[in-house]
Amino acid sequence: MWVTNYCNYSGAASNLRKRYADIKRPLFLLVLSNTEIATVPGISGAGSAGRYIQHTPAADAEIVSHGRLKTIGVMSDAPSGAVTPAVLTRAALNLSQCAHLLINSGLQIVPGVPYYDLRAERGYDIRIKPGVPNAAVIRIASRKLAAHSDCDLAVIGESIPGGTTTALCVLHALGYGAHVSSSFSSNPIALKEEVASEAMKRASIDVGGLRKDPMRAITLFGDPMMPCVVGLVEGFVSLGKDVILAGGTQMGAVAAVLKQLNVREGVVIVTTKYVFNDTSARFRELIDSLEIDAFSAYPNFSRSTVRALQFYERGEVKEGVGAGGAMALACLSGHSQAVYRREVECVVKQLQ
Amino acid sequence: MWVTNYCNYSGAASNLRKRYADIKRPLFLLVLSNTEIATVPGISGAGSAGRYIQHTPAADAEIVSHGRLKTIGVMSDAPSGAVTPAVLTRAALNLSQCAHLLINSGLQIVPGVPYYDLRAERGYDIRIKPGVPNAAVIRIASRKLAAHSDCDLAVIGESIPGGTTTALCVLHALGYGAHVSSSFSSNPIALKEEVASEAMKRASIDVGGLRKDPMRAITLFGDPMMPCVVGLVEGFVSLGKDVILAGGTQMGAVAAVLKQLNVREGVVIVTTKYVFNDTSARFRELIDSLEIDAFSAYPNFSRSTVRALQFYERGEVKEGVGAGGAMALACLSGHSQAVYRREVECVVKQLQ
Repeated sequence: MWVTNYCNYSGAASNLRKRYADIKRPLFLLVLSNTEIATVPGISGAGSAGRYIQHTPAADAEIVSHGRLKTIGVMSDAPSGAVTPAVLTRAALNLSQCAHLLINSGLQIVPGVPYYDLRAERGYDIRIKPGVPNAAVIRIASRKLAAHSDCDLAVIGESIPGGTTTALCVLHALGYGAHVSSSFSSNPIALKEEVASEAMKRASIDVGGLRKDPMRAITLFGDPMMPCVVGLVEGFVSLGKDVILAGGTQMGAVAAVLKQLNVREGVVIVTTKYVFNDTSARFRELIDSLEIDAFSAYPNFSRSTVRALQFYERGEVKEGVGAGGAMALACLSGHSQAVYRREVECVVKQLQ
Repeated sequence: MWVTNYCNYSGAASNLRKRYADIKRPLFLLVLSNTEIATVPGISGAGSAGRYIQHTPAADAEIVSHGRLKTIGVMSDAPSGAVTPAVLTRAALNLSQCAHLLINSGLQIVPGVPYYDLRAERGYDIRIKPGVPNAAVIRIASRKLAAHSDCDLAVIGESIPGGTTTALCVLHALGYGAHVSSSFSSNPIALKEEVASEAMKRASIDVGGLRKDPMRAITLFGDPMMPCVVGLVEGFVSLGKDVILAGGTQMGAVAAVLKQLNVREGVVIVTTKYVFNDTSARFRELIDSLEIDAFSAYPNFSRSTVRALQFYERGEVKEGVGAGGAMALACLSGHSQAVYRREVECVVKQLQ
């Protein structure tokens, strides 16, 4: 199987298809946000060029929903030419025929396809002021949204440029020393640490200082994606539904908050093998300390003839737009790695 | 009981509480739209003043979701001083504790509370060009939305100023001679007929000419609320869920389209007694020819001390924002007419 168990604390089946054998109505939710932190020069590799960085979530949304751009003029591919993970997600949703729901939680640029609008503001520069002053309001609104969303398995992904830096800062505030991943193959860790440390200094918070107040960590150092995912997970878990956090270190930061809130039942994390392989991110360490069930998805693009996909094998992009979790859905619906890879190639061709 | 059966074609229980005895998870959906037709002088009594007429749905949305205005500066009360039906809907949702979902289907002014955005354009002036060129796209998107909305009974209301004129024109195109209701106590029927007849002349369509192509009637003569409600109902009905169309002649027009599309199973119409009592609208005739189960909700505001509510007894406003259907939810959850009336008075007081 191309989506494999990395660790298992719950004791549930380690085989993905066995674990979710009873699932009938999965729903893929994609949380779209912007944060001012993305505009710190050199911090994010999302989007094809610096000045269009904030267009990335809207472009990703159009690709996931529509299979190509609709109103956004700039592709959300990485500067290297690696294709946006939105393509990987689209291909997986095509195969699994899974319904999806886009959520606008603080977008500055909106897509031309339907979405649920939480009416949240963009995230602010955490070096200057709290990143998400209205985190509590977002959390309540997304909890309500979960309550009337019909599914038995919620797969939750995100697209927010600059989000790994806010994730790093939230993790530090909760006492985790873990580094974070990057869509660059050479991770600008020093710069991210600098931003995080400046933000924590401004707020007079030490490492681990907000372990007992994780929502305050989001308010001060997070981004608007985080309270949205927290609220969604709380809503789904309270109704006894299964949840897959689809992402790497950013979903790791959300999982760290959820752990402190004691929301754990039925929640797993699924990301790509590229994130697990990223030694600079120390992602495995983070997962181990979170004590959460985790799965690793591997599309093996070394077997692809498409150059924009081969980049992934070199550590470019790695994850995003819930791609790993979406692959789990494709795998659950019985599709092989080879079939999935061909579908990704089809989506890439339709984009050109 | 204060919500009573008016007609019963399906043979299901005529007692509202018996009919919906098994309902566990109702959902109130409010479709919010704008159409240029609202700006024809004298055509709509929605909103407190002509220049703010297009703010009405956004204001209504804030009142339903938030209990008061949040970002919109102008109350959506009628020019006479009669309170907006959003207040009646809010009170009913308060009592029933029913979840709600706002849907933006072509708003020009958006509310400051969460909603699902179909990314639809406003409706155009049907005298000049088709009212909803993208009706098919809206219909498909709202069908998808219904598919992942969790409920066993969907109560669907609307807020769109000028919507009775587009309803009249769609009804004519489908062969119905029925007049339509108005939020004015003296219904400007002649003006509405003039607009409808001009639109039909432009498109070279005779009365009844689109009986076999009801979606084309919406495209040419309708507004963006209509394809949204059609898609929602199709989505819910295909999943075997019950549907209440909450409104008067506007929902009558949608019901006429649904009848031609043969989407009928489990669909009823609920509106206020004020609409049934409106002799100028010939609403009873319309309902009879639609062969749909219908219920009438009566809050009896003659017993209220609040003047802005007493206006309803004189035929002002009558219905809107799904108020009648929301009253059915309050009634279903066991609340009496007197308790409901007191809750409405509370909401009115909180607004001031």
